[in-house]
Amino acid sequence: RPSAVRMPVVMTVAKPGTRSSSQWQAIHADIEAHLKKAIPVNPPPVVLEPMHHLTFAAPRSTAPALCVAACELVGGSRDQAMPAAAALHIIRAAAVAHENLPLTDRPAIRPPVAHPFGPNVELMTGDGMVPFGFELLAGSGDPAGGNSGRVLRAIVEITRAVGSQGMVHGQYREVEYLLSRVQGSRDDQEWAADHVWAKKEGDLHACAAACGAILGGGTEEEIEGLRRYGFYVGMVRGMTAHGGGGREDRWSNAVVEDMKKLARKALAGFDAGKVEAVASILDCGIES
Amino acid sequence: RPSAVRMPVVMTVAKPGTRSSSQWQAIHADIEAHLKKAIPVNPPPVVLEPMHHLTFAAPRSTAPALCVAACELVGGSRDQAMPAAAALHIIRAAAVAHENLPLTDRPAIRPPVAHPFGPNVELMTGDGMVPFGFELLAGSGDPAGGNSGRVLRAIVEITRAVGSQGMVHGQYREVEYLLSRVQGSRDDQEWAADHVWAKKEGDLHACAAACGAILGGGTEEEIEGLRRYGFYVGMVRGMTAHGGGGREDRWSNAVVEDMKKLARKALAGFDAGKVEAVASILDCGIES
Repeated sequence: RPSAVRMPVVMTVAKPGTRSSSQWQAIHADIEAHLKKAIPVNPPPVVLEPMHHLTFAAPRSTAPALCVAACELVGGSRDQAMPAAAALHIIRAAAVAHENLPLTDRPAIRPPVAHPFGPNVELMTGDGMVPFGFELLAGSGDPAGGNSGRVLRAIVEITRAVGSQGMVHGQYREVEYLLSRVQGSRDDQEWAADHVWAKKEGDLHACAAACGAILGGGTEEEIEGLRRYGFYVGMVRGMTAHGGGGREDRWSNAVVEDMKKLARKALAGFDAGKVEAVASILDCGIES
Repeated sequence: RPSAVRMPVVMTVAKPGTRSSSQWQAIHADIEAHLKKAIPVNPPPVVLEPMHHLTFAAPRSTAPALCVAACELVGGSRDQAMPAAAALHIIRAAAVAHENLPLTDRPAIRPPVAHPFGPNVELMTGDGMVPFGFELLAGSGDPAGGNSGRVLRAIVEITRAVGSQGMVHGQYREVEYLLSRVQGSRDDQEWAADHVWAKKEGDLHACAAACGAILGGGTEEEIEGLRRYGFYVGMVRGMTAHGGGGREDRWSNAVVEDMKKLARKALAGFDAGKVEAVASILDCGIES
């Protein structure tokens, strides 16, 4: 039985006036604590042990932390975003588990990961994690507290971002892209890679930021601004972590800098004094 | 590319005074029409064609129809239950797809099914179907119409019934049961089989009936009565379709008759004139 797996953390020095890397770490720690409380390690251990493992084994995403930060930017409290952040973390971790499942028709195109539980259990554990994520979020709706409508809207946002037109589509394109990397023109490769990160990281971060704004009571303008911001954050994350689809590094860096500019532009409507707390995620070295 | 797959239908003669088999067929047809409208066959076809196929290829379950009938029994309209019925259908179909996925460590213990799309696409299609099911249900919440609280409650019900303590647990037990069928005492086998049907069919039908009652505005007593009823319906369905865990047929039939009695008893609190419309599902020959 594997012991608890710690997520790797890369610390960077914070720029003056921004939310420091340690503040982002604090958000991550809050989300992790929320998840650990939510996932009991009780019977049946055949189900809950692998769930615990797979939930924390996945490389950390910045999307859940962005959800919390977006909620705080529009004046909401951290608690209001926490169930959505936890749901995003769990559902994405399930997708990562299924990505790494060895299948008879899927060549080993991704770097190998440890499989302490075997494919049958990993498949079913992932299948259990997705409804659990939605349960955490749906269960946070309080009809008496009047947030039911917001929670339902966040659920719809997440279903779209992780479903067949979002994350799953990105995963499918990624397999195609990885299989064809050696062939194909460079333009094709660049476009294919951008498409993968748009679906797997752009849409996910856009959804996370929008959900935070929805749950924190943001205006429609704030929600859409943060959605655009999240999309560019996700693209920056995807391209930085996974490369620019065969582009030369110099050119790839230029595209990333461009995305960062677009991201900051999407925050133009917000209070300049508060905006840096969210914008600093662009320069944080936390593993994407 | 496979053409649309029709669900197999077994017609039986209705008893006088009950909801006839053709009325159950009508409910199924309504759910199917709702699903066909909900799942476009638009771009990207790589995702939506397999989704369409897997949604209708799974053997039909009585759970979605029970959800609709339960809603009508408590005075609700068919429309109020339809998104939950569609969600139950889609999410269960995804579970069936994943059950039939060939994995490197899962011996061929289930009867073989056709795999027109290959494991990689079937895995990801199932992964897309689950959020899509929740999207249909969450999207039916109308904050202005005041049903948000009910819809959130139905989502929590479904997440629990299909997650790691429900359907997924049943699937895990089923693999264990099928692998060990040749060994083990008869008591063990009976218990294991009952446990599988309790999780895979009992809990699912209990959830379906409870969701129908919740969405139709039933009282807490009605919701819990229909939940108990649904559980026994599911057990009857599971044992009838899949056998009684090695029990002699005579003994197995006696257990099924007992479950039917318990099911009818759970409906004791309802208007006797209306109850047969729901109770007739116990004697319908629709494939479970």
